[in-house]
Amino acid sequence: MDNKLILMIPGPTPVPEQALLALAKHPIGHRSSEFTPIMGEVFQNLKWIHQTQNDVLVLASSGTGAMEAGIINFLSPGDRVLVGSNGKFGERWGEVCQAYGLNADIITAEWGKPLDTEQFREKLEADKEKQIKAVIVTHSETSTGVLNDLETINRHVKAHGEALIMVDAVTSLGAVNLPIDEWGIDVVASGSQKGYMIPPGLAFVSVSAKAWEAYKTAKLPKYYLDLGKYRKDAAKNSFPFTPPVNLIVALQATLQMMQKEGLENIFARHQRLKNATREAVKALSLPLFAPDSAASPAITAVAPVQVDSEQIRKVLKKKYDIAMAGGQDHLKGKIFRIGHLGFVSDRDILTAIASLESALLELGYDAFTPGAGVAAAAKVFNS
Amino acid sequence: MDNKLILMIPGPTPVPEQALLALAKHPIGHRSSEFTPIMGEVFQNLKWIHQTQNDVLVLASSGTGAMEAGIINFLSPGDRVLVGSNGKFGERWGEVCQAYGLNADIITAEWGKPLDTEQFREKLEADKEKQIKAVIVTHSETSTGVLNDLETINRHVKAHGEALIMVDAVTSLGAVNLPIDEWGIDVVASGSQKGYMIPPGLAFVSVSAKAWEAYKTAKLPKYYLDLGKYRKDAAKNSFPFTPPVNLIVALQATLQMMQKEGLENIFARHQRLKNATREAVKALSLPLFAPDSAASPAITAVAPVQVDSEQIRKVLKKKYDIAMAGGQDHLKGKIFRIGHLGFVSDRDILTAIASLESALLELGYDAFTPGAGVAAAAKVFNS
Repeated sequence: MDNKLILMIPGPTPVPEQALLALAKHPIGHRSSEFTPIMGEVFQNLKWIHQTQNDVLVLASSGTGAMEAGIINFLSPGDRVLVGSNGKFGERWGEVCQAYGLNADIITAEWGKPLDTEQFREKLEADKEKQIKAVIVTHSETSTGVLNDLETINRHVKAHGEALIMVDAVTSLGAVNLPIDEWGIDVVASGSQKGYMIPPGLAFVSVSAKAWEAYKTAKLPKYYLDLGKYRKDAAKNSFPFTPPVNLIVALQATLQMMQKEGLENIFARHQRLKNATREAVKALSLPLFAPDSAASPAITAVAPVQVDSEQIRKVLKKKYDIAMAGGQDHLKGKIFRIGHLGFVSDRDILTAIASLESALLELGYDAFTPGAGVAAAAKVFNS
Repeated sequence: MDNKLILMIPGPTPVPEQALLALAKHPIGHRSSEFTPIMGEVFQNLKWIHQTQNDVLVLASSGTGAMEAGIINFLSPGDRVLVGSNGKFGERWGEVCQAYGLNADIITAEWGKPLDTEQFREKLEADKEKQIKAVIVTHSETSTGVLNDLETINRHVKAHGEALIMVDAVTSLGAVNLPIDEWGIDVVASGSQKGYMIPPGLAFVSVSAKAWEAYKTAKLPKYYLDLGKYRKDAAKNSFPFTPPVNLIVALQATLQMMQKEGLENIFARHQRLKNATREAVKALSLPLFAPDSAASPAITAVAPVQVDSEQIRKVLKKKYDIAMAGGQDHLKGKIFRIGHLGFVSDRDILTAIASLESALLELGYDAFTPGAGVAAAAKVFNS
């Protein structure tokens, strides 16, 4: 049906009415007396959701722009860095390092498996001369639905003592606990079309005092992505370059919603959505791509064998107006991904699983008892 | 009054209802069958408004990001470039060149005066060894309301034969004729919150075949702003990184409006708005900051002497809900700027001038006959 589509992809995620209506307001000047207090509130609430007193800067870019800024502002050509790579986004940060002439040591894991934290420990312990300047990790790997064990990797980085830790939290921020100040995470990048519940166009970077120290001597060239400029203007609730004001007014609305819900409740909700989705998928005898022990609360990847994942997506889209994501790169056609990030309720999971069951029946897949998926999800919601 | 504000700053510019309503639509997936045809249409219409068959690429960034991309994708460290600088934005492109280690030869003119095209001719003619790789010019200098003589500068670049010409058209594109293919302009950068009539968040770069040749050997590091990635995906009406889908749907709406109005009519309207504004300001005996011969059709800067420009802005904002821009950097407090770019009609100029007259009276400025400004504007509209 027209205008009936539900997004259950890992981004853009659904946007609540408050934010959509805010988007439709006439823009205001970004150097006006109306905008400054809005930005002041937004900066404060960004610190709140980042659980930090560090600067949280706002860029007009995709999440990739923010992550690139997070990498290039604190490093110099030839710097040795450790990069975790177990999916499309880990690979991307390796490419960024290569583009900027960093000496990147890539720690890989199979797509769908978490990074081996021991490999980080070994490399960091072996680095007696403290040549490793940064460790770059994707927290929730959007391409596979794997949540890497950031807490443990970070502990090894802290034991090293010198290296900065830089985190792609694009699909983890606002979905899973990431206590930046408590853990001492130096750089955290994220994007608006994910846990923030607004459309794409804004990205965020949180920067620690230790990272700002590194900034002083970092030599990679930059201008638009020069975070020093953003920091200077953020102190006046302003921007060095024209910001997307409508998106910021929408963000003001969703951050208020998030504050009302509370961080603990937001994390618990995502945990519940993940559990319900995974239990339902198991009840349908469909293989999960990531193990339970490393499952992202933002996205669940499913790797069906007896039925074609692209066919499932087609039926869901055409008949039930639900958009789910396919696999990327070599996983194309091998997995489909259910996004449950941001403005997603228990009801949305019931809707998705009920529709998935119906689609599976249409495709002749009969390795499950009709209703079993919904029952398994409902059981999670009532436990 | 609440919610009564009219923007007459050089950006963000007013946004028509069609675009505001498009912004408020639920986002769609950027790799979906719904998005691809929209993007196909948008790319086509962007070529139309750019008067080119060159690639016109779309970035999630401010205009500065697009201009930086336009510079760094086609040059290498140490390359000699000529940069025109007669305002804040010309200065900025000099800073970008410096940040990237280019050998920039800055041709300056006083703020408020146009660049001297002869200086470009001399430097280009003297460059027998063809070491100048690019000439970088701001077309409409937003900070001063000066329109530089791009056509003549470009003729000198063409006579040189080797250098690329790169243009900041942020406040000229969609306001004044810039026939990219006819003139052979290699790189043109612009931003969404200007002539495009949508909020900030998108930026555009048009790239010629000659520039793509230079891209092959250009050595400045880049990833998020690597235009080669955007070109590759644009061929499939897609993006390398998540685009701001809501802004693109709004852009689809405004590009359709622009097509309906027609390029010639759009340019004529801006010319008329400029003329009416300038005639009115003259009738109020207020000094214009830029000469008639180099006046931007997007913005008129006024440099009052007997009355304080910041006071004028304050009264206009507070009493008449009209936002005009102040001066930047050393022009702060010396000028105010009337934006008449994008979704601006003859009526808006009458409104602005009538309100300006009333504000001047309040401030005790009596060097004009009340009504004279509006009469002068009306005369232009009826000539």
